[in-house]
Amino acid sequence: MKILLVGASGMVGSAIAKELHDHQVITANFKSGDYTLDIENKASIEAVFEQVGNVDAVISTAGLIAFAPVNELSEQDYNTTVGNKLMGNIALFHVAAKHINKGGSFTFTSGFLAQNPAPGSAAVSMVNAALDSFAKAAAQELEGTLRVNTVSPRFVKETMELMGMDSSTGVTAADTAKAFRYAIESSETGQAIDALDHI
Amino acid sequence: MKILLVGASGMVGSAIAKELHDHQVITANFKSGDYTLDIENKASIEAVFEQVGNVDAVISTAGLIAFAPVNELSEQDYNTTVGNKLMGNIALFHVAAKHINKGGSFTFTSGFLAQNPAPGSAAVSMVNAALDSFAKAAAQELEGTLRVNTVSPRFVKETMELMGMDSSTGVTAADTAKAFRYAIESSETGQAIDALDHI
Repeated sequence: MKILLVGASGMVGSAIAKELHDHQVITANFKSGDYTLDIENKASIEAVFEQVGNVDAVISTAGLIAFAPVNELSEQDYNTTVGNKLMGNIALFHVAAKHINKGGSFTFTSGFLAQNPAPGSAAVSMVNAALDSFAKAAAQELEGTLRVNTVSPRFVKETMELMGMDSSTGVTAADTAKAFRYAIESSETGQAIDALDHI
Repeated sequence: MKILLVGASGMVGSAIAKELHDHQVITANFKSGDYTLDIENKASIEAVFEQVGNVDAVISTAGLIAFAPVNELSEQDYNTTVGNKLMGNIALFHVAAKHINKGGSFTFTSGFLAQNPAPGSAAVSMVNAALDSFAKAAAQELEGTLRVNTVSPRFVKETMELMGMDSSTGVTAADTAKAFRYAIESSETGQAIDALDHI
């Protein structure tokens, strides 16, 4: 499969690129990769597809998010989380949908926090739940044409270690990447795919 | 209880005002009510609370939404649905949280479409799910200080009739309003309260 991976430079994104070595993976990041792309800039998304042409799958792990206690969430925190992770990925989806071959797939990245909030996660939980619900709705309308899912990672073990947290409940980036393989190779659509189910 | 009801002029909002006749209900709408208020304009929200003072509960049924086939959703549709219903209500929440007496409550209105999409509902489902998840996260952090819930209405019978739909599965506005009474009078927090459970 010819796959456009948006956000391939992060912890999970780079693991996905490795996991999908048996496919043709084209990477597009904010500042690196085969192409550069800003999900907040529709023209930059369109420019990448003009060069890459049609693909069989698009995976996005891109998206900036802000954590803060709910009473301290600022307009800037919302602008980041809603403007970038939510609306940036929705913009990517709409452009990508015109360039994914019939029967192909679009995979968003949401997260366990969507339905399992933690202190400081209100904006992030909100946006992850929004992506899960959008994928479910879009998948229902596009059935037979385009599969649409989210992968919902658990806490990534390497990230927890970097943050000095107990990482015993974490899932490695390499294991998390397996859920993205499932998203592109299975026939699932409209699902929030729990990374824990595909280790 | 002293309750600020934002969006009291709509089908559900006006039913809530009637249902809560045994409380002191102050109404604030975009163009009518005891006060006028635009949830997209933070200064107008603050101005209302400056005049009303502290309250025991805030209920919002306000929020503009746009339905369209997923492939036809426009930037304007997202600006409306995300800018008004989602971020307008989040802005209302943040101002209101400073003016609700300890032990009081804030109640958003989401909807059945959050987890049960219908054709054309992608943006609406996304935003309703976002509000459910925000309430769950905020409630967890604010436990003991402020209760935060959504009421998730089913299709409103009167609205279905106005649209010429079969209304047999609908819930009347008067019955839907009972879930809002439950939201303000119960000890629930962090819940998406299904209107069907409170008829």
